[in-house]
Amino acid sequence: MRTSAAPRVRVGMIGAGFVARLHAEAYRHVHGIEVELAGVAAARPERAAAFAAEFGARRAAADARAVIDDPAVDVVDLCVPSHLHAPLAVEAARAGKHVIVEKPLTGFFGPAATPRAEMLRQALAQADGVIAACREAGVRLCYAENWVYAPPVQKARRLLAAAGGPILRLVGEESHSGTHAPINKRWETGGGGSLIGKGCHPLGAALYLKADEGRRGGGAPIRPVSVLAEVAQLADTAAFRASAPRYLNTVEGADVEDWGSMLIAFEDGSVAQISASDAVLGGIRNQLAVYAAKAVLFCNINPNDAVQAYAPDPAVFAGEYITEKIETTAGWTFPQPDEDWMTGYPHEMQDFVESVAHGREPLSSGALARDVLAVVYGAYLSAAEGRRVDLRPHLTA
Amino acid sequence: MRTSAAPRVRVGMIGAGFVARLHAEAYRHVHGIEVELAGVAAARPERAAAFAAEFGARRAAADARAVIDDPAVDVVDLCVPSHLHAPLAVEAARAGKHVIVEKPLTGFFGPAATPRAEMLRQALAQADGVIAACREAGVRLCYAENWVYAPPVQKARRLLAAAGGPILRLVGEESHSGTHAPINKRWETGGGGSLIGKGCHPLGAALYLKADEGRRGGGAPIRPVSVLAEVAQLADTAAFRASAPRYLNTVEGADVEDWGSMLIAFEDGSVAQISASDAVLGGIRNQLAVYAAKAVLFCNINPNDAVQAYAPDPAVFAGEYITEKIETTAGWTFPQPDEDWMTGYPHEMQDFVESVAHGREPLSSGALARDVLAVVYGAYLSAAEGRRVDLRPHLTA
Amino acid sequence: MRTSAAPRVRVGMIGAGFVARLHAEAYRHVHGIEVELAGVAAARPERAAAFAAEFGARRAAADARAVIDDPAVDVVDLCVPSHLHAPLAVEAARAGKHVIVEKPLTGFFGPAATPRAEMLRQALAQADGVIAACREAGVRLCYAENWVYAPPVQKARRLLAAAGGPILRLVGEESHSGTHAPINKRWETGGGGSLIGKGCHPLGAALYLKADEGRRGGGAPIRPVSVLAEVAQLADTAAFRASAPRYLNTVEGADVEDWGSMLIAFEDGSVAQISASDAVLGGIRNQLAVYAAKAVLFCNINPNDAVQAYAPDPAVFAGEYITEKIETTAGWTFPQPDEDWMTGYPHEMQDFVESVAHGREPLSSGALARDVLAVVYGAYLSAAEGRRVDLRPHLTA
Amino acid sequence: MRTSAAPRVRVGMIGAGFVARLHAEAYRHVHGIEVELAGVAAARPERAAAFAAEFGARRAAADARAVIDDPAVDVVDLCVPSHLHAPLAVEAARAGKHVIVEKPLTGFFGPAATPRAEMLRQALAQADGVIAACREAGVRLCYAENWVYAPPVQKARRLLAAAGGPILRLVGEESHSGTHAPINKRWETGGGGSLIGKGCHPLGAALYLKADEGRRGGGAPIRPVSVLAEVAQLADTAAFRASAPRYLNTVEGADVEDWGSMLIAFEDGSVAQISASDAVLGGIRNQLAVYAAKAVLFCNINPNDAVQAYAPDPAVFAGEYITEKIETTAGWTFPQPDEDWMTGYPHEMQDFVESVAHGREPLSSGALARDVLAVVYGAYLSAAEGRRVDLRPHLTA
Repeated sequence: MRTSAAPRVRVGMIGAGFVARLHAEAYRHVHGIEVELAGVAAARPERAAAFAAEFGARRAAADARAVIDDPAVDVVDLCVPSHLHAPLAVEAARAGKHVIVEKPLTGFFGPAATPRAEMLRQALAQADGVIAACREAGVRLCYAENWVYAPPVQKARRLLAAAGGPILRLVGEESHSGTHAPINKRWETGGGGSLIGKGCHPLGAALYLKADEGRRGGGAPIRPVSVLAEVAQLADTAAFRASAPRYLNTVEGADVEDWGSMLIAFEDGSVAQISASDAVLGGIRNQLAVYAAKAVLFCNINPNDAVQAYAPDPAVFAGEYITEKIETTAGWTFPQPDEDWMTGYPHEMQDFVESVAHGREPLSSGALARDVLAVVYGAYLSAAEGRRVDLRPHLTA
Repeated sequence: MRTSAAPRVRVGMIGAGFVARLHAEAYRHVHGIEVELAGVAAARPERAAAFAAEFGARRAAADARAVIDDPAVDVVDLCVPSHLHAPLAVEAARAGKHVIVEKPLTGFFGPAATPRAEMLRQALAQADGVIAACREAGVRLCYAENWVYAPPVQKARRLLAAAGGPILRLVGEESHSGTHAPINKRWETGGGGSLIGKGCHPLGAALYLKADEGRRGGGAPIRPVSVLAEVAQLADTAAFRASAPRYLNTVEGADVEDWGSMLIAFEDGSVAQISASDAVLGGIRNQLAVYAAKAVLFCNINPNDAVQAYAPDPAVFAGEYITEKIETTAGWTFPQPDEDWMTGYPHEMQDFVESVAHGREPLSSGALARDVLAVVYGAYLSAAEGRRVDLRPHLTA
Repeated sequence: MRTSAAPRVRVGMIGAGFVARLHAEAYRHVHGIEVELAGVAAARPERAAAFAAEFGARRAAADARAVIDDPAVDVVDLCVPSHLHAPLAVEAARAGKHVIVEKPLTGFFGPAATPRAEMLRQALAQADGVIAACREAGVRLCYAENWVYAPPVQKARRLLAAAGGPILRLVGEESHSGTHAPINKRWETGGGGSLIGKGCHPLGAALYLKADEGRRGGGAPIRPVSVLAEVAQLADTAAFRASAPRYLNTVEGADVEDWGSMLIAFEDGSVAQISASDAVLGGIRNQLAVYAAKAVLFCNINPNDAVQAYAPDPAVFAGEYITEKIETTAGWTFPQPDEDWMTGYPHEMQDFVESVAHGREPLSSGALARDVLAVVYGAYLSAAEGRRVDLRPHLTA
Repeated sequence: MRTSAAPRVRVGMIGAGFVARLHAEAYRHVHGIEVELAGVAAARPERAAAFAAEFGARRAAADARAVIDDPAVDVVDLCVPSHLHAPLAVEAARAGKHVIVEKPLTGFFGPAATPRAEMLRQALAQADGVIAACREAGVRLCYAENWVYAPPVQKARRLLAAAGGPILRLVGEESHSGTHAPINKRWETGGGGSLIGKGCHPLGAALYLKADEGRRGGGAPIRPVSVLAEVAQLADTAAFRASAPRYLNTVEGADVEDWGSMLIAFEDGSVAQISASDAVLGGIRNQLAVYAAKAVLFCNINPNDAVQAYAPDPAVFAGEYITEKIETTAGWTFPQPDEDWMTGYPHEMQDFVESVAHGREPLSSGALARDVLAVVYGAYLSAAEGRRVDLRPHLTA
């Protein structure tokens, strides 16, 4: 709806793939602010051009610098592979642009044999570099953790605020049947496996809710102090290999975990159990349970029963999207009426452009992104050494 | 998101109450089109002024004509009691304005003792008057049946289109624990009880899906041919009056039904079972089941399990909305993360302003509104005379 | 568990098919009473012999009379096609044997063209004959309506008794994807279609709960006074025939309805909506909702979520039962951990042998069976004539 | 149902409290075997006498030895506090009696300050003593882990057998709002907190399913090799203490955990995540998820939706059981139609008396009981030392 002086935010996108499309789609739903796609860069020029044409971007470029340096760009939205997040974010900040970075903010990208303590050190150093660059440039760092914005999580936050009293325990999971894309199955490109790729989501939401609980009373965010974790390659065992046919998506030469579970303690004595798996059939699971002193909340981002569908054979629904990563569309399924919405994409982009337009912090910012990295790489260290990892030395104030 | 030449639609609202606020809130979420609140009229001027201030309307007036005649208004949005829909819609159309009318489009508003055949005749005559006025003026008639736009119903529509084959049977219901507002409990003001006030919603969605099925194959809408119905005053029996304490909302002097159920036959041999009740505890129920030749779809607008909440006593969630018409917020509840969204309000307003801006029919138009009235008042006639009512003589081509 | 003087009940079974097996299995679970299978009769002697061997019956016979006249038989359990219920029940009663009759107690079995009023008259006359024969012989008439005994229905009954106040409305349904067995699809053998074959179940439970409500306060059962109904052949329309592939089970030459819905009014002003369908994909649905003045109860006999299962393709669960009438075992399904138990078979047989052993009425008796017939055949009459049928002239005191 | 030569099993019960009643009730439902309650012993003679009268036991005694030495007793059923399990089981075995022991089989019962390694050593030594005594006496050791028998778990087992392929991951939990009984909140009497008291259930079921997977193919049970765990006292933090009103059941002076979570690795590379909590509002949660290579199974022992109930205030259902440990019966609840059945008690006792009568191992035996103890006390050690515990040195072949 138009108001007399709708502010305008000019976005430059780096990347024109799946995530870029999700973001561009979400920008379309922003209201109260004029979002202008000032430019898009992609290594393959024809892809940038096609994207610009489809979403109405003013310029298409093959080089990220063209977007970063464009004076008509207010905010740079990085929709590129994870290992490129940190260097491009630093470049954008130094060019005076606000930055939107997809999850994870950064990580460790190198040989699987690297000691986990070194991975943890490098990932946090990278994150610190990005955060410092943004602070020094006076620009916003928007961490695109959509679970913070997912309507069920925000509803839970409001109900918790109404109820008062501490959250005692959070139990969260993101899982599905994996991917055939090698990029996500190697340390060099993925920066880890299920925990960094999927576990960052429920972890981000859990850390956000505890931080919000602390701030709600006028205090500091309540933060994690330790993590104990296990990881495994469930689809890389003798028993699994002997079992046919196979339904999980596996990649030859994968060197990352396809399951991980983290037991996290917070400074106030509360706990979180966060799991992630690439070895779960039956469609994506995005769930967070919150057990508080006065209430219980279950956030069922996926699946939920807003729509329940049945097809007697897989051909029936062939023409329509059901849900991410389901192996068959036969039988009963739980199709999302609008997966982007339920997953929080439009709300996320609304907050980001508002934070830029109105000069305030986004709900999901660099501080959250860094805590997520500390916990996940702390978990990798814990699993490798079979011991609890004290996170306090690794957290910034 | 801004595009080079975003069209603009200027809305004038008549009414500044609950429904007007829902609509104004929904206009805020419209994207791709500039919606301008050109004016608002309310009988109480201070209310109009407050509304204008809150939602940024340019003018506030005490008289509907001021809005209707305002040359700065493209579309008049009628958020007034049902018995005022038809006369104001006709006025607006004659003034050359597009019209948005809340459900029901119109009805019979008079003494309860009026024969049901006469009620049916008058309701359809009123509807025909509105439709003719809009046609003659060349303006859009937007029928605000939000179920047509509710994301679960639209998802079901897409899945049915993917599946192909006929819908065999629809089962729908809207029900809750009633109201303390006498306006909805008297024929003079409500135009009936549960069936017209609540049943119109699942009925509208059912008629829409069958019409869409017909049009999908390039043919005509598939329409109803008969209705058989019962109505009752469940909360007005000796047994109910003897039972204490009471939890349902009842009104002394109510002369309309608090339950009705309609068995509808379509011209292709398929059927619908549509019920409505004001005598249901436990929160609003907005549900539609679609049994098709190749698929089954359940649309759970309310309740669904996107969020599940538990509070050990009703005080816990006192500060936060749970769901419409729940008697207690203790125990397990199913709070909507965003009830407006799940119920289709933003999608509805998006379609209406697009239909106006782009000169096309809205998904929910006068044709649907009239069929809803024919079925509901046909149902009143059926229940009164204890016989099946042939709808064909009452339907327009 | 053994008690000092466990009474003994000797059962003679007529029939050795699917239902007989269900009953025999249920007898095995009876406790506190010694159930002895004294004999079994089946037209095909080898089938009777096999059954006797499997379930430990003392005698196998080809002739029902051999079982009925056997002095070692206390109760005759009729597991035969519906049209044989009444004559065999009368014979058994006259032989001084208690009688267990599967649903429906009896019906009309003849040409489809018979006027519905005549069907109603004949069905009730048959029922009256059975009831009179049992009364005259002083034997129990046990009406095997398992829904009365299904644990969810009995739990609802106890909760309603705890809550007090009237039931205002019941909504029940049994439906699935039909059968390939012509016997159930012809008036001559089935006595009707979905309503008599499936609808009798939720109807029986609804009538039982209202009767129980009346008796609870020391009064008479609360009984139905009228019915308004529609029936249809949903899988026999041009649109359905044109749609391929077909997933519903259809029978060429079927002359009965595959869908029916009944709107029933009770003498206290409350109502029931009971539906049945043979045109529902996705597995059997056995559901009853009870909306009372002080409480709401949903009985989900099938499906419920005690177990949720997912298989990526139909071959995975090929070796294990999922649920009745599901077209695919791929995708998500809701397998019953113990369908017999959830459906009330062991509880039903426990009550029947206790009623015989202890000389008391079973919960589900001839009175309920007759009311079910009056409502269902009243519904056929209603649907045929398109008018409400007053049931009072057809009900016995 | 009676068969010609129903075997007889004579049970002597030690204890006459809550658990003894559960068992006695379950014995009543045993079929095909005559269960005779030969005697009952309770420290308070009047309690034993009342129990004997109610359940038809032949003798009541104040001394456990009177039951153990009774020649008319075949099997001794120990329904006594956990710390008495081992000594009485050894006595019973030495007297030549089969033994039924409630969970946990035994444990460590002493000062909270005892090193966890010592606790682990003592608990397993106790278990070994019981197992050896039974083996030497040639009697059955029946470990009353009802989850092994719960219908949803057995249905999952059958579906897994049908599917084939390995279980990759199990996620289980038992939790509720705790207890006011100090006996369960102290190491001396409870042998630990949530993990031993509640976690033993989902753990037992998980170990059983993996063991069954191994045996299914003719091989050895697949067993756990390590555990990593955290425990906490969630209802003993400053934030919790500052929050009023309190809804969780807490005990002053509790020295055991009210939450624990275990990450277990199996020898085949699969994993289990087992949690238990006394700090969960909203009713008992008994859930096990099984993610296998070819299927997913969710066992919802509690809650499930076989019955859904709503009451507008807590007084409505005051007279009828809803579910264990719910704080309010207002709002929506999920009452169990028959909690004993869904929880597996009758099936458990059926197996135990059959194992005794037919001279075979019960499904839940000493081997399972000992593995449960090794994992739980291994978990306590892990949490105390903040490191992964290798279970292999602690497991017997």
